[in-house]
Amino acid sequence: MTTSWDMSAIGHIQSPYREGFGIPRQSGVVPAATGILLPTAEWQDPIAWQGIEAFSHLWLVWVFHAKRRMGPQDSKAVRPPRLGGNQRVGVFASRAPVRPNPIGLSVVRLLDVTERDGAVRLQLGGLDLLDGTPILDVKPHVPYADCPGDSQGGWANAPPERLAVVWGAAEHWITRLDPAQVGLIEQSLAQDPRPAFHADPKRVYGMRIEDIDVRFVVREQRAEIQEIVPVDTER
Amino acid sequence: MTTSWDMSAIGHIQSPYREGFGIPRQSGVVPAATGILLPTAEWQDPIAWQGIEAFSHLWLVWVFHAKRRMGPQDSKAVRPPRLGGNQRVGVFASRAPVRPNPIGLSVVRLLDVTERDGAVRLQLGGLDLLDGTPILDVKPHVPYADCPGDSQGGWANAPPERLAVVWGAAEHWITRLDPAQVGLIEQSLAQDPRPAFHADPKRVYGMRIEDIDVRFVVREQRAEIQEIVPVDTER
Repeated sequence: MTTSWDMSAIGHIQSPYREGFGIPRQSGVVPAATGILLPTAEWQDPIAWQGIEAFSHLWLVWVFHAKRRMGPQDSKAVRPPRLGGNQRVGVFASRAPVRPNPIGLSVVRLLDVTERDGAVRLQLGGLDLLDGTPILDVKPHVPYADCPGDSQGGWANAPPERLAVVWGAAEHWITRLDPAQVGLIEQSLAQDPRPAFHADPKRVYGMRIEDIDVRFVVREQRAEIQEIVPVDTER
Repeated sequence: MTTSWDMSAIGHIQSPYREGFGIPRQSGVVPAATGILLPTAEWQDPIAWQGIEAFSHLWLVWVFHAKRRMGPQDSKAVRPPRLGGNQRVGVFASRAPVRPNPIGLSVVRLLDVTERDGAVRLQLGGLDLLDGTPILDVKPHVPYADCPGDSQGGWANAPPERLAVVWGAAEHWITRLDPAQVGLIEQSLAQDPRPAFHADPKRVYGMRIEDIDVRFVVREQRAEIQEIVPVDTER
């Protein structure tokens, strides 16, 4: 009996999230998180994508490539941020990134399908993926099958509360940045990227979005941006 | 750069579907299709499942183990039954079983979690899985993230039309079978298990459900059971 299977990337994601910190904890909660699915050479063939525009949303099956894999030394329980970070539940009762098989699932919005020199690319929205994430499969989102009307999502039944976002001392950046980037920063901050347990109103966090570093503090459910620092990269 | 990953079964499904023919084409459409997720020895540990009862539905990430894998000789297009079986779309615009990576996704209802001699088992409903299907991952279904309100499912936006089911010459079996089995047979037949293109009202099909063979014909959107034949197995 076969008990293991070799899975290969059919493409990779280009995402504004270049570091783990700041990535939304579920797909769809930051609509402005747009990016590109760039298929590998074999799967750039338009035939493999024909008709996909009929669907508004797609499932991505992907690999937690930047996380180590759950090993025998690891606990089989995790502490989800939605439970405050101090209550343990089983790994299969959560979507935590360190798992027996490093597989992630995301529903993303299909914004556009483009073709250049015979190579297909997908423009996607609502990403919760690190830049470079390998994609194993893409399937249409089929609401009648994927959305049972009586599904109860336990402690994650409702979306997490959002923070208010103010630009404070960084206000002069609003007009200097691309409007799409402003929206992406605001929506990403509203998700409260802080780890569970963190409640120090003086602590300055740095969230990397594309080629800028967003420095902010959180006080009383309000994220206040303190500084925008362009990051020098060769990307 | 890593481009392939080895994935291992964390468990297997015990399902009433012992053959491909008759398996619902999506999860959830046959609620009476109940079965068991039996974790492998390593993952029978109750700690790995702690808290999962808080969720009404779960995602199963699984392997199309009975299908060959899409190879270089295969077309990258498929003919979905929902399009009548004669129109081609790309493999990523469908959930067809022959795929670049043989990964399937199903939403199933969590009916019960039981523990026997320290080993966890999950009772599940709404299965669309072949008996013995290997499971790679289990994650909670989180409706706010998994069910975008404006998702449009293309040609699969609405569930397929159901057939009426009549017992006809096999009516005396209704009282001899377990009521759960009667429901399972009726719901499975209502999905119209025939391949696309088939429209011969005289053709007798055999659908294997658990240890019986259900022989039926389809005339004018009505499945008529002709015979119930117990199958001799050593299972």
